[in-house]
Amino acid sequence: MNGIILLAHGSRDPQWTASFEQVRAAVERRLPECASALAYLEHSVPDFATAVDQLVARGTTLIEVVPLFLGAGGHVRNDVPHLVKRAAVQHTQVRFSMKPFIGDAQAVLDAIADYAAAKPATSK
Amino acid sequence: MNGIILLAHGSRDPQWTASFEQVRAAVERRLPECASALAYLEHSVPDFATAVDQLVARGTTLIEVVPLFLGAGGHVRNDVPHLVKRAAVQHTQVRFSMKPFIGDAQAVLDAIADYAAAKPATSK
Repeated sequence: MNGIILLAHGSRDPQWTASFEQVRAAVERRLPECASALAYLEHSVPDFATAVDQLVARGTTLIEVVPLFLGAGGHVRNDVPHLVKRAAVQHTQVRFSMKPFIGDAQAVLDAIADYAAAKPATSK
Repeated sequence: MNGIILLAHGSRDPQWTASFEQVRAAVERRLPECASALAYLEHSVPDFATAVDQLVARGTTLIEVVPLFLGAGGHVRNDVPHLVKRAAVQHTQVRFSMKPFIGDAQAVLDAIADYAAAKPATSK
């Protein structure tokens, strides 16, 4: 089985993850044959290693990692690749791949710009 | 003149802002008659108050704030509304409005899910 891990920053605030859970559900609707999981770098659970373990326990042999970050700083350039490499060393039977962070996806940036440019909300 | 402030988190990493600058340019293409600016809560410049001052100096009388956050934690629920309220007190001649954060926009979440579910990148 193929797997996807949506990897986000995480937050101490339990409400912070709600949008990411919606993205995961939307990915599952698009790829019902694929095992999808969320994982977080900080504070929120599960962390990346735990999400990998859970997908591997479900029989996943190919895991694609999608960094759900809009900006590419040290997390995207260093921390995420490091986690993926470490998981690949620990799970030699699993093939890992990684997509560029979502802030690199033109369609995502366009959707944000469309939203920002849509007619104003009610004044406050 | 109407204005839009795209308000993002900010980062110590100077490369972090690149995607947000792309969003601002895309908003400007969509709304060439509108003054658009980026602003950041932390680390990156300008901060929100400075961006407001700059738009006001350009003659903007209505400013819409779009929080470029995927997750809604304390920043979205508390810090951003607080900054907008403070700016409204300081600039009584300007009308402020605020859109929900982008993680609340279904089209944005769908674009992220489309990207995540698209055919895998090259394995690493």
